[in-house]
Amino acid sequence: MLASPYEPVQPIHGQMTPERIAYLGPAGTFTEQALLTQTDLAGLEHVSLPTIQEVLEATDAGAVDVGFAAIENSIEGAVNATLDALAFELDLLIQREVIHPVEMCLLARNDTAIEQIERVVSFPHAAAQCHHYLAKTFGQVEIVAANSTADAARELSENGNGATAVIGTELAATTYGLQLLARHIEDHPENHTRFVAVAREGIPAPTGHDKTSIVTFQRADRPGSLVNILQEFSARSINLTHLQSRPTKRELGDYCFFIELEGHVADERVADCLKNVQAKQALVRFLGSYPAAGEQAETTRGEANEAWGDAERWIDEIRARIR
Amino acid sequence: MLASPYEPVQPIHGQMTPERIAYLGPAGTFTEQALLTQTDLAGLEHVSLPTIQEVLEATDAGAVDVGFAAIENSIEGAVNATLDALAFELDLLIQREVIHPVEMCLLARNDTAIEQIERVVSFPHAAAQCHHYLAKTFGQVEIVAANSTADAARELSENGNGATAVIGTELAATTYGLQLLARHIEDHPENHTRFVAVAREGIPAPTGHDKTSIVTFQRADRPGSLVNILQEFSARSINLTHLQSRPTKRELGDYCFFIELEGHVADERVADCLKNVQAKQALVRFLGSYPAAGEQAETTRGEANEAWGDAERWIDEIRARIR
Amino acid sequence: MLASPYEPVQPIHGQMTPERIAYLGPAGTFTEQALLTQTDLAGLEHVSLPTIQEVLEATDAGAVDVGFAAIENSIEGAVNATLDALAFELDLLIQREVIHPVEMCLLARNDTAIEQIERVVSFPHAAAQCHHYLAKTFGQVEIVAANSTADAARELSENGNGATAVIGTELAATTYGLQLLARHIEDHPENHTRFVAVAREGIPAPTGHDKTSIVTFQRADRPGSLVNILQEFSARSINLTHLQSRPTKRELGDYCFFIELEGHVADERVADCLKNVQAKQALVRFLGSYPAAGEQAETTRGEANEAWGDAERWIDEIRARIR
Amino acid sequence: MLASPYEPVQPIHGQMTPERIAYLGPAGTFTEQALLTQTDLAGLEHVSLPTIQEVLEATDAGAVDVGFAAIENSIEGAVNATLDALAFELDLLIQREVIHPVEMCLLARNDTAIEQIERVVSFPHAAAQCHHYLAKTFGQVEIVAANSTADAARELSENGNGATAVIGTELAATTYGLQLLARHIEDHPENHTRFVAVAREGIPAPTGHDKTSIVTFQRADRPGSLVNILQEFSARSINLTHLQSRPTKRELGDYCFFIELEGHVADERVADCLKNVQAKQALVRFLGSYPAAGEQAETTRGEANEAWGDAERWIDEIRARIR
Repeated sequence: MLASPYEPVQPIHGQMTPERIAYLGPAGTFTEQALLTQTDLAGLEHVSLPTIQEVLEATDAGAVDVGFAAIENSIEGAVNATLDALAFELDLLIQREVIHPVEMCLLARNDTAIEQIERVVSFPHAAAQCHHYLAKTFGQVEIVAANSTADAARELSENGNGATAVIGTELAATTYGLQLLARHIEDHPENHTRFVAVAREGIPAPTGHDKTSIVTFQRADRPGSLVNILQEFSARSINLTHLQSRPTKRELGDYCFFIELEGHVADERVADCLKNVQAKQALVRFLGSYPAAGEQAETTRGEANEAWGDAERWIDEIRARIR
Repeated sequence: MLASPYEPVQPIHGQMTPERIAYLGPAGTFTEQALLTQTDLAGLEHVSLPTIQEVLEATDAGAVDVGFAAIENSIEGAVNATLDALAFELDLLIQREVIHPVEMCLLARNDTAIEQIERVVSFPHAAAQCHHYLAKTFGQVEIVAANSTADAARELSENGNGATAVIGTELAATTYGLQLLARHIEDHPENHTRFVAVAREGIPAPTGHDKTSIVTFQRADRPGSLVNILQEFSARSINLTHLQSRPTKRELGDYCFFIELEGHVADERVADCLKNVQAKQALVRFLGSYPAAGEQAETTRGEANEAWGDAERWIDEIRARIR
Repeated sequence: MLASPYEPVQPIHGQMTPERIAYLGPAGTFTEQALLTQTDLAGLEHVSLPTIQEVLEATDAGAVDVGFAAIENSIEGAVNATLDALAFELDLLIQREVIHPVEMCLLARNDTAIEQIERVVSFPHAAAQCHHYLAKTFGQVEIVAANSTADAARELSENGNGATAVIGTELAATTYGLQLLARHIEDHPENHTRFVAVAREGIPAPTGHDKTSIVTFQRADRPGSLVNILQEFSARSINLTHLQSRPTKRELGDYCFFIELEGHVADERVADCLKNVQAKQALVRFLGSYPAAGEQAETTRGEANEAWGDAERWIDEIRARIR
Repeated sequence: MLASPYEPVQPIHGQMTPERIAYLGPAGTFTEQALLTQTDLAGLEHVSLPTIQEVLEATDAGAVDVGFAAIENSIEGAVNATLDALAFELDLLIQREVIHPVEMCLLARNDTAIEQIERVVSFPHAAAQCHHYLAKTFGQVEIVAANSTADAARELSENGNGATAVIGTELAATTYGLQLLARHIEDHPENHTRFVAVAREGIPAPTGHDKTSIVTFQRADRPGSLVNILQEFSARSINLTHLQSRPTKRELGDYCFFIELEGHVADERVADCLKNVQAKQALVRFLGSYPAAGEQAETTRGEANEAWGDAERWIDEIRARIR
């Protein structure tokens, strides 16, 4: 494994322009593919690192300006390496989320016909997610593990032979000069991964369509249960988009909660809510407020709906009567 | 009973100065006594009316600028005539609350010695609240009912004899030329009555030590239970000072809730709470925001305490990082 | 006022048959009228006492087996004398509730024609509740106070003249040999009063249509707010039929809550709820479980409805799989 | 990949003795190691299958009587393959949980000295979890992926050379005739995995120290939020040991919740709670009630503590007064 002998550069807060971005390598991963969908990030200098832990540590240390890492996969669930590093170890702020579909492709050398294939190499989870395609296409086939889908592609490109295919990204085909034998071979075409871009400083200004991520820890002196925490959100009509209990690793039975909510800490309602949770219920660690991926969702608290509009007018009329 | 042939006058909202105030008469009642503690109200033209209903209707009709009526007694509980008129019938706003101790006095003609007394006249509730004093002082004595304590005093002054005493206010002694045979003869010296001054328009500006009164009605299409309503207050750390379920008189089982809370509708937190209750839980009728009687209480949500101060600083530091 | 020199008798718990019942006198009150609707209670020896306090104290002391007192009027609200005695002072259990309509009648001597009447005597609240009838029938008429409607009737019978009418019960006409000049003269014909029969011992067995009354007091060491208490009921789908905050008289700001709920302490669900409130939230004072008045209401937790029936079957099927 | 041509055998419900158990193979996995800690399960015929999905499907199809699979790892988090199969696809009941520490060992052929090692083969997650040991021991070393730790060991045993080590279980050393070069080489010695044994039928009888697993789905017609669901548990003092939101895969924004709680569906309190959640809040899928692993924890609702004991006695005394 590599040590990370980066020279620190200026982090991106203030007016500074970020210059370098780290991601889980090697080239051709799903992570790089997702990163390339972001035109501003695509133009930075890319630093490929072998583990998520190193990507985030390099960002925390200032060796890069931005780190880019998966945080949740719709099949595999939370990426705990990312969550734990953000929650327990480093002091980084989420800048953006990117949701990217997981399209698996079958790649081979340019001289390979599909009938010749005797073994398929890939990251074990990726191979498992193409179970149906492999069974249908090959019946029995040898499945060989690699450290990542991109590793498999690179290895095939460098040392492979015509009896081997790999499962990987379309990007890896381009990167390593392989041909695309088949696309969309995954069992679950709806599978997608959520990535986050993190930095040492700066909370993006609110866009009107934002998310906020926090972790809450029970306070020893204030047993405040989850239901009390959730009531703070519920009473303010703040929608949660993700909730997960997780042991804090301090000791058995010591839990924290990862919570993602709609809204931005710049919103009075969100700020007041977090303040109340912090003061009354639990320690809160703030992981960031950032633009939500995807199209503009339903407005959070139904500002558009009739009952809410009526209530707004009602309270405004009352307050107009204050002398 | 009197009809109320008042000429309407200008209500007090805007810069208008109120000129007339109605109260439950006759002169010498506890209500008048409480009213006289308020120097600005004491200087208005006083209109004595025979029932609370008429006091409030005269205010609603514009015949007087301010109505003054009891709303709660610490022994007898809520004064439903006042609550119901404010909640169901009229459109008035509470301007002020006045909390006044209920001091019962024994009054008699100037030529009466206490040994001569054979009967005590008063409003039945007042006599009941002096049970111990009467038993100790007189053993057996005839208790005679009057329509009010002030009525009893006036009648004694006009037509009474030396064998009669009345239970009433110190003010009634002055008003009707009677002597004070004894003060503080009530069984419960801590007994007090809360009065409200109401007007057709205007919400007093916040003082930092205010109360807000509302009534909530279940919506047919949104069964929102009390617990949901209370969570709105609880989540925002808004203290309730009074809560009472009450049938709406529409039909059996149809309930509303009288709620009094600390804070002013000018406070964002209170306004947001009322707006949410109105939009999500129940119809809300606003009865007023007004200065709370009594000394400055503990600050509502513990703004002064350490946890809250820490939480304020914490959220401020986070928001300072927004680009 | 009378002292109460009763010889204690055996209270009604166990197999003992109650023999004596106390009520708010004199004969002819609404309380006696309601009592007479209960055939078993009507057959006991009746003891008329001058105040609610004495009725309840006589029961507590064992001077009578049953006490009968108003606890709530749909116009006047809670009868705090009864509530406070049950909650703070005595150790009595509610045995039954009786809901009785408040029908006001105009009574006069047999030789009186309605045109002759110059004054109307009654308890002040009763006169106030016949405001519309009196105004329409008499225009201006002198209203004279009495200590109770029954006192007014008795006094008219003994000493009255042909220019006087009283407002009282139909029972008072019979009791005191008066004629019924008019019935249903009350402004609010839907007005009714709820009475309770109390005893020193015994909780009536559940009937399937019961109520339970409690008072909850905040514990100094466990600030448990009302919302937490109500969640205990809400989570168990226990309906509340009455809720009222009330100062405890110990000091300002010290509140308790009168709560009435559907169900019987013999129900596991109610017992578990009360146990949890007692253990976690607040001191609970148990005032009784007793048959609810009125026709069988909607079943409490929607046992009849489809979702609940489905859930019952679902859990039964699961539990049938336990080895 | 293997098809699974099992002959169905009789499932274990009723008095039937289970005969066959499936687990994630090949021999020598952590799963087999955990399974062998259970003496009754260790004695069954073991069926090793290549994926968790196949283990659970074989159980559902009756090809084996018991399936054994990881459900949660303290570092990697929930094993979504297991959770999703139980929640969405199959109809299996959890019979038992087994918590097993994740001890990583460095294995090599018997003729290998540690200085000779040039490459380390393992499942990628296992290698990642030994990052510190590998860096300290080898500095730079080639990391090669395998489909599982046991696959790596088997391959080394069959085809490996003296320059290769594998990371795997102590069991794999025995199974494949390798030597144990080092034990406890994992970065996080507190890491453990929770496994479940599942079957088609039967809920183990309560032991007094049980857990219950459910999944809740929002009902389209009853938006019941998580906070309402949690209040059902909170009000009954039912502790949750795990909570996780998860997309249902039906569509974006459609969430379910995995919930584990202390207690058994045979407990009235748990049954009543689940019934209420099912009737009022959300569709509930029952995944099982089973003995909790580990020593007897703190009693769930503080039955031992003083307040609860007092409350128990208090309610018992009240109920003793029922006639």
